[in-house]
Amino acid sequence: MRRVISVTFPTMDTKNKYFLRALKGESLIRPPFWLMRQAGRYLPEYRELRQKSKNFLDFCYSPDLAVEATLQPLRRYDFDAAILFSDILVIPDALGQKVEFREGEGPVLEPVRSIDDVDKLSLDGLHDHLAPVYQTVSRLSSEIPQQTALIGFAGAPWTVATYMVEGKGSKDYARARTWAYADPEGFGKLIDLLVEATTAYLIKQIENGAEVIQLFDTWAGVLSENQFQRWVIQPTVEIVKRLNKACPGVPILGFPRGAGILYQDFVKQTGVDGVSLDNSVPVSWAAEHLQPLCTVQGNLDNMALIAGGEAMENEIRAILEGFAGGPHIFNLGHGILPETPPEHVERLAALIQGWES
Amino acid sequence: MRRVISVTFPTMDTKNKYFLRALKGESLIRPPFWLMRQAGRYLPEYRELRQKSKNFLDFCYSPDLAVEATLQPLRRYDFDAAILFSDILVIPDALGQKVEFREGEGPVLEPVRSIDDVDKLSLDGLHDHLAPVYQTVSRLSSEIPQQTALIGFAGAPWTVATYMVEGKGSKDYARARTWAYADPEGFGKLIDLLVEATTAYLIKQIENGAEVIQLFDTWAGVLSENQFQRWVIQPTVEIVKRLNKACPGVPILGFPRGAGILYQDFVKQTGVDGVSLDNSVPVSWAAEHLQPLCTVQGNLDNMALIAGGEAMENEIRAILEGFAGGPHIFNLGHGILPETPPEHVERLAALIQGWES
Repeated sequence: MRRVISVTFPTMDTKNKYFLRALKGESLIRPPFWLMRQAGRYLPEYRELRQKSKNFLDFCYSPDLAVEATLQPLRRYDFDAAILFSDILVIPDALGQKVEFREGEGPVLEPVRSIDDVDKLSLDGLHDHLAPVYQTVSRLSSEIPQQTALIGFAGAPWTVATYMVEGKGSKDYARARTWAYADPEGFGKLIDLLVEATTAYLIKQIENGAEVIQLFDTWAGVLSENQFQRWVIQPTVEIVKRLNKACPGVPILGFPRGAGILYQDFVKQTGVDGVSLDNSVPVSWAAEHLQPLCTVQGNLDNMALIAGGEAMENEIRAILEGFAGGPHIFNLGHGILPETPPEHVERLAALIQGWES
Repeated sequence: MRRVISVTFPTMDTKNKYFLRALKGESLIRPPFWLMRQAGRYLPEYRELRQKSKNFLDFCYSPDLAVEATLQPLRRYDFDAAILFSDILVIPDALGQKVEFREGEGPVLEPVRSIDDVDKLSLDGLHDHLAPVYQTVSRLSSEIPQQTALIGFAGAPWTVATYMVEGKGSKDYARARTWAYADPEGFGKLIDLLVEATTAYLIKQIENGAEVIQLFDTWAGVLSENQFQRWVIQPTVEIVKRLNKACPGVPILGFPRGAGILYQDFVKQTGVDGVSLDNSVPVSWAAEHLQPLCTVQGNLDNMALIAGGEAMENEIRAILEGFAGGPHIFNLGHGILPETPPEHVERLAALIQGWES
């Protein structure tokens, strides 16, 4: 139990930002909030900005555009945190894998499916390649409002590996999952490389001003218990350990999306400061089993945010009430969708900002 | 606690089939087993048979072909149960919605997206339309080996509704989920109709010889707690209640795939005799929280079955050991995939048949 009860409102205290206090275990009178993928296609100004670069990776590697994309939602809503605008596939790209984003098709990668393929990847050019991202972080660090926390992020090794192995998004990640079963040593080499790259990448983000790190393990939920232990928990343990050593005091949020019952093992074993919950996690269960161990983040159904109205407000209130007894960051259970009406986000922000637990 | 300890081996006792004993709560010396979608494209004889009808729904509505497809895997492996070969989308088809299966594209339906669309559907022609399925069940009932149990099935209302509303498979079921939030009354009308149709359909299957029913709720896992309660648990409660009344003693297996922590609520509230677990459910958790309440079925990762070898055998043994203390039916955590080598299924069968707990 690391719970500290506190009832102060957000202030302009920039040394102890409201968002960071929740991650240190304080129960606040209203939770800090942000939205996953808060910069994105639901905003007309983002759709316009996005036109400035045909190529999505070029967009991510352009500090001017990435800074602007990150700042856009902050001009509309008083989010307590801003998240670096980037993509989880910059890591395979920086390791030398061919990565493309094709319109209407999503990412296409030259697949990595053997130890030989893994051996062709290299950490050597990592920081040179990712320098524009570090520059974006550094600029954001001075350009975001003083009371707003800056979140850096990366994809977790398992999820990044699924794209690297499949060569694209997939329904069941069959190639990655069968490789992981049939040849744990070979697949493990890919995961080890990703642990190295991800850690180095995140340390640089922190050195450039990121105050919090979130690790996205979007496809953690497809794995069986043993595989989850080996490919989700173990690599996360390693990354958290190294980050804690290199950058003590910088809190880490884990997001093993869809982990279900295994959220418990994840929290107990990885040492994350906070855990992001997908919308299928019952609030009462998480309040009982996870919130005593770390800060919980979530978990509004992104479909309720599209629907709006009474249904959305009931869902929001149930989450606010359910997590009021401990440290909580309000968020969605998954990324915001392009169909979301911006005025529903406005209503959500008003509800949270007017909340007093 | 309905657990009865028993250690007898399978016999030719046709009055008290081995499979049914597990569903009545007996812990058997080795679990009965079958595989979800055990008739399917991983078998060359199925791929050949499938050529006999271009149209997949016609294939399902041809008793000759559907009976043969159901019997094929039983000639290779000593499964303790056979499941009717059919598809969950025969229900929308029988209600008057236009349903097509296009090669390489999956199902395509004329979407149902309003109360007006729901009002156009009708229960009137249901049994006439589904008569070939009932005939298939009836023929299977006399043609399968005497010690083999015959499983009838249907899609659960929520999952069938996702296809009816989206008009096809989907990544996130956005239209169904937002309709369910924004207009629970209208969407509820569709679900109520599906409860009616599904119950009537399953009663007829039982009257024609089905000895067990499985309800597939493949997309249950995307819903938040409240929505799961309303669209998964409530309709299942209703179907189970009506089936228990109309056909007392016929056991019902529920499969709210991906339900995670909500598996507990599902089992406690629906009154199912058994619950099918997807591969993300940890065995030790299910043995502690679910197995004391009902028979558990599952939950080998279908990717481990593709991989084969030591990895597969370790997973199988962990499941056999983990569930040895209570009533268990061995199965996959999701349908078998076309890439599965039939010899891996052979090895699985040998392992289970040689098992003594």
